[in-house]
Amino acid sequence: MRIAIVLFDRFTALDAVGPYETLGRLPDSETVFVAEQRGPVRTDTGNLAVTADRTFAELPDPDIVVVPGGPGQTPQMENETLLDWLRAADATSTWTTSVCTGSLLLAAAGLLEGRRATSHWLALDHLKHFGVRPTGERVVTDGKYVTAAGVSAGIDMGLTLLGRIAGDEQAQTVQLWTEYDPQPPYDAGSPEKAPVHIVERLRRESRFSAK
Amino acid sequence: MRIAIVLFDRFTALDAVGPYETLGRLPDSETVFVAEQRGPVRTDTGNLAVTADRTFAELPDPDIVVVPGGPGQTPQMENETLLDWLRAADATSTWTTSVCTGSLLLAAAGLLEGRRATSHWLALDHLKHFGVRPTGERVVTDGKYVTAAGVSAGIDMGLTLLGRIAGDEQAQTVQLWTEYDPQPPYDAGSPEKAPVHIVERLRRESRFSAK
Repeated sequence: MRIAIVLFDRFTALDAVGPYETLGRLPDSETVFVAEQRGPVRTDTGNLAVTADRTFAELPDPDIVVVPGGPGQTPQMENETLLDWLRAADATSTWTTSVCTGSLLLAAAGLLEGRRATSHWLALDHLKHFGVRPTGERVVTDGKYVTAAGVSAGIDMGLTLLGRIAGDEQAQTVQLWTEYDPQPPYDAGSPEKAPVHIVERLRRESRFSAK
Repeated sequence: MRIAIVLFDRFTALDAVGPYETLGRLPDSETVFVAEQRGPVRTDTGNLAVTADRTFAELPDPDIVVVPGGPGQTPQMENETLLDWLRAADATSTWTTSVCTGSLLLAAAGLLEGRRATSHWLALDHLKHFGVRPTGERVVTDGKYVTAAGVSAGIDMGLTLLGRIAGDEQAQTVQLWTEYDPQPPYDAGSPEKAPVHIVERLRRESRFSAK
């Protein structure tokens, strides 16, 4: 199987690396980072660049599509090269997936209409603009579409899909190898759990947009 | 503060990206990926390259040092350029940290002697070769040395250290922004929890080495 992980300017690194490190350990698979052009693509902080090894044109038919999100998602909503590639890749993909605001890109491409999906909690409502039914679940599977909540949720999505495709044992092996036995020092990872004033501040500062 | 994240051939991506995405969101800080040479550095799977933006020589005095691990750690144990840089950077650092088998590199540089530290569960015993006291905890702080267990533990380490430096509120903000509310689909993330036959298989196949 060929897994294509999409890159674009100002994506969020962990959105892409979570599925890469888990789902990417699918036996007999090849993971390829793809973008409009080959070469380094900078993340949202500007401090990290990941190499796109292939262009969209060079990988038209991956078996699994993974679309990360991040602050750079907004301008991509009007990038017809990306949206066209998503539509074409999705036409033959076995699984089409996203992390964080990557689901807004799938939605903008018209791929999630009428489906249940999730996104970064700050962007969840934007899914409605595209006829998508948002849910606050961490990983949502609707047909061949698997969407994950914000940033770190891509790890859970990757393990979930890995188990679905390769079986529980392979997913457990990867979980053990990556020592994914989370022990966050705080319990503030969702808007229901975090202190209210922090939730409100992030809502005020949010720049995620459906347009 | 300047945070240096070390890269070397065949590092494990999430080891580096976990702290980058959490600790790297420290206010008024700059995160720099450093390696022997500038340019793309390939991970253990060969499918991902991260750009080193500075050479070791160009960043001799970071405030925080982060050393990832991965299968590529073994040959680095004899890389005097890397070990010398670690010793020199540590001489003036505020915090010296590692994820996964990165602690073996700190140990090989002589920086952890007599201290408590952790590592990937498959490599924990190797710490003893360097006079280090291994502990199975996920994040271990001993003085200015903060070591994390395997791969994904760097996220917990990054949030822990972020809270220590910038306060609980900043760490909780980053936890909420990265939606780090883990819901692994299995409970197999440590050798105590995973099925015994998977633990045994990974032990047989392990290539982590102290030499």
